[in-house]
Amino acid sequence: MQQAQTMLVATIASPREEVPDDSLILSEAEITKLTLSILRHHGLAQEQATALTELIVAAERGECPSHGVYRLAGLVRTMKSGKVKLDARPSVSVDDTAIVRVDADSGFSPLAFNLGRPRLAEKARKHGIAAMAINRCVHFTALWPEVEALCADGLVSMAMTPSHSWVAPAGGVKPLFGTNPFAFGWPRPSGNPYVFDFATSMVARGEIELHRQRNEPLPDGWAIDRNGKPTNDAAAAMSGALLTFGGHKGSALSTMIELIAGPLIGDLTSAQSQHFDDGAGAAPFHGELVIALCPNVFLKDAKDRYFESAEGLLNNIVAQGARLPSQRRFEARVRTGLNGISVSRPQYEILKSLTL
Amino acid sequence: MQQAQTMLVATIASPREEVPDDSLILSEAEITKLTLSILRHHGLAQEQATALTELIVAAERGECPSHGVYRLAGLVRTMKSGKVKLDARPSVSVDDTAIVRVDADSGFSPLAFNLGRPRLAEKARKHGIAAMAINRCVHFTALWPEVEALCADGLVSMAMTPSHSWVAPAGGVKPLFGTNPFAFGWPRPSGNPYVFDFATSMVARGEIELHRQRNEPLPDGWAIDRNGKPTNDAAAAMSGALLTFGGHKGSALSTMIELIAGPLIGDLTSAQSQHFDDGAGAAPFHGELVIALCPNVFLKDAKDRYFESAEGLLNNIVAQGARLPSQRRFEARVRTGLNGISVSRPQYEILKSLTL
Repeated sequence: MQQAQTMLVATIASPREEVPDDSLILSEAEITKLTLSILRHHGLAQEQATALTELIVAAERGECPSHGVYRLAGLVRTMKSGKVKLDARPSVSVDDTAIVRVDADSGFSPLAFNLGRPRLAEKARKHGIAAMAINRCVHFTALWPEVEALCADGLVSMAMTPSHSWVAPAGGVKPLFGTNPFAFGWPRPSGNPYVFDFATSMVARGEIELHRQRNEPLPDGWAIDRNGKPTNDAAAAMSGALLTFGGHKGSALSTMIELIAGPLIGDLTSAQSQHFDDGAGAAPFHGELVIALCPNVFLKDAKDRYFESAEGLLNNIVAQGARLPSQRRFEARVRTGLNGISVSRPQYEILKSLTL
Repeated sequence: MQQAQTMLVATIASPREEVPDDSLILSEAEITKLTLSILRHHGLAQEQATALTELIVAAERGECPSHGVYRLAGLVRTMKSGKVKLDARPSVSVDDTAIVRVDADSGFSPLAFNLGRPRLAEKARKHGIAAMAINRCVHFTALWPEVEALCADGLVSMAMTPSHSWVAPAGGVKPLFGTNPFAFGWPRPSGNPYVFDFATSMVARGEIELHRQRNEPLPDGWAIDRNGKPTNDAAAAMSGALLTFGGHKGSALSTMIELIAGPLIGDLTSAQSQHFDDGAGAAPFHGELVIALCPNVFLKDAKDRYFESAEGLLNNIVAQGARLPSQRRFEARVRTGLNGISVSRPQYEILKSLTL
């Protein structure tokens, strides 16, 4: 292990420049090497580690810190908990329906998604609409890389998953739902796709943790404490519950995600995932539902005409001064491609400690 | 026409009781007869009128005034505008994909849905997941009756549709999206299904109209005026724009609905529907997307076990004092079944005038 650690420190010790707020600037290749080293150091199989690393690097490239290297500490905790199979080999099964099933074999989700993706695309192109149910997977990543990948396959898609029960239903007082993200992707004829990915909680759980780490108060409406009362304290929120976005509407969407990315695909709800965790503090263990729709089957010869019409809609959003949800991330990619990826000094210290 | 009018007045003139706030109480049969008379009086074909009436009566039974007889004035305006074909004959087409296409023939949507529904159920049971694209239909109804019907078929479903461009994107200043409702249904082993149906705008357009009629100010955050500034004035909101629920997340969902229930199915966006209307003030003319998922295909022998687990989730929502989204409507049905349906005196006068 000494060897891996030395290599890692050597990698981190050569930042291209030091920025004013005491952050380090690393290249994409350096972040990749660093992430892979940490994951391999803790025993994750090569194929699993590679798939995970791609997503962490994608988050860093897009300046999405809550899904970047920040997650590595939690990943290592999950790996140490014994709640994830480090050498899991996902298996994909199909029949003559439009459903693709991937058994993640109790491993992390990214490799399972990667293996199922070509079969999902195949099914969507044949039937017009298809679903992929990923079961028994440990989740920690954002969903936008998945719908973005399906955009690259020319498909429209939705992806959703429960998590751990950290969120109270609207009108409720106790955690029951996960942060239950919902992502959507629409391929655009040229350039970047239209992609969004949001937690149906007011914010992602990671945001609360970042506020706690920074000792910052939470905005109103984000959370309740363990007695069901509104709170601005991040620690109180962690032992209480997050609230859903958009009141009863967000709560309804969150319920839908529990149902169709849980019981419908033969997998756990967020509360059941929490129960399975049994205090280990590991990443959620459950399923994911991806629905893909094939524009060529829906539209045939009329595809170009209607995709032009969709462009009109998206351009009209931007024309009135509003932003597209993925715009910031696409801009960040150009920026980090030119300038490198910024990692704060405390984060860097945490990463160093993960190789010990 | 004199005969129809006399019959109608006779129907309305026999309310079972007069309630304190000067409302009339009518039975379900009376509301049915009254609605059918008005629609037929204005030349709507029998089959079309019957399908529409069922939905208006369902809304009244569930005490959902914004989709009940209140809508008849707008329906009559739409019928008089020439923007809807009164004797439209929807046609259903299927191929070997999992997509059902219904051409509504420029008629109202309910008959088109009713005719496509059995084919959608068939496709979902065969492929596990299926989609129904309803094209060229005039929309004015709620979507919950549709997902509720699919629950009765044992299917999980989502339904969504654009409308007219009345809603500004988050960060924008001008109307672009429709109120773009999203509905979801989950069949429960016993009793009423889990169903929600919400506008992705802060409220349905009908709510703004009701506020204007009652001269009530709008709550903060519902709307902007024609200059893109926040307003509490219902009339200013009507010439400005509604806002989406849940900020940028609701705005993203609304965009998704524009895309997949518009261009993806070869139909209009809300802005295009508005343009087609050309100031006639008719109901939106566009498409609808329904996605159905078959639990028997997804779960096979494990269905009962996982539906039991879903019951656990839904019961845990209620157990902590929160309400299920459709609960109020189901309770209202019991109430209106016992006590009859209340229609306000001004609404009753409007209904009478619609037979002239």
